[in-house]
Amino acid sequence: METIRHNVVIKTSPEKVYQAVTTQEGIASWWCKQTTAKPELGFMNIFTFGTFRNEMKVAELSDNKRTEWECIQSIEEWMGTRISFDLEERNGNTLLRFTHGGWKAATDMFAVCNYDWARFISSLKTFCETGTGEPA
Amino acid sequence: METIRHNVVIKTSPEKVYQAVTTQEGIASWWCKQTTAKPELGFMNIFTFGTFRNEMKVAELSDNKRTEWECIQSIEEWMGTRISFDLEERNGNTLLRFTHGGWKAATDMFAVCNYDWARFISSLKTFCETGTGEPA
Repeated sequence: METIRHNVVIKTSPEKVYQAVTTQEGIASWWCKQTTAKPELGFMNIFTFGTFRNEMKVAELSDNKRTEWECIQSIEEWMGTRISFDLEERNGNTLLRFTHGGWKAATDMFAVCNYDWARFISSLKTFCETGTGEPA
Repeated sequence: METIRHNVVIKTSPEKVYQAVTTQEGIASWWCKQTTAKPELGFMNIFTFGTFRNEMKVAELSDNKRTEWECIQSIEEWMGTRISFDLEERNGNTLLRFTHGGWKAATDMFAVCNYDWARFISSLKTFCETGTGEPA
């Protein structure tokens, strides 16, 4: 199994980053404008990019520390993969450890998504630090 | 062994991207301002970021298609790793497949570098497409 991993320090509290990665308003501000999401275990988040619809079940929630989504419906290579956000307080800032794991192989699509995730994680950082992200 | 992989389409010819990833002037424009480099097999490229000095031997060169560097001197986790740029023409544009392979483990440093490489590959894309990159 292959895993995409991005670590970055976000200059704000874990509480603020947790809001950004668990609430509908938060996620819509840095990743996917057409988001239906709830910070509720088992809730089916839906992220739509044009005709590309993703259903991701909230599989883990730990207040201000971690959330994980399980990909239930998406493109074939994403099926069954899991996306997680781990937050650790570092001198008043937040170390984010992002992963998208469970890929069957490190394909061209994996390498495209790795590049794209970095851009969205950068958008998340900018949103948390300035209030403005670059969602798709 | 773990490998960082980023794929991105750059809207210019493979010739132009090849110049950007093999010549001193090119690399200094998107990655490392303090670069000594030559498109010559076996040449020791030197990339300096403040006190962080990297010596990378040009291990492969294939005109307008591919180059690979072998990391000879750097931080411990980079020692012996290899960085490659593969270029493929796609309808007048270039598909870049970037890899940084040979990592012993997917550590926190690996995840930091994965994020940072995406930002520099984005800088390479911008430099090739507009003439202005964001080197460190």
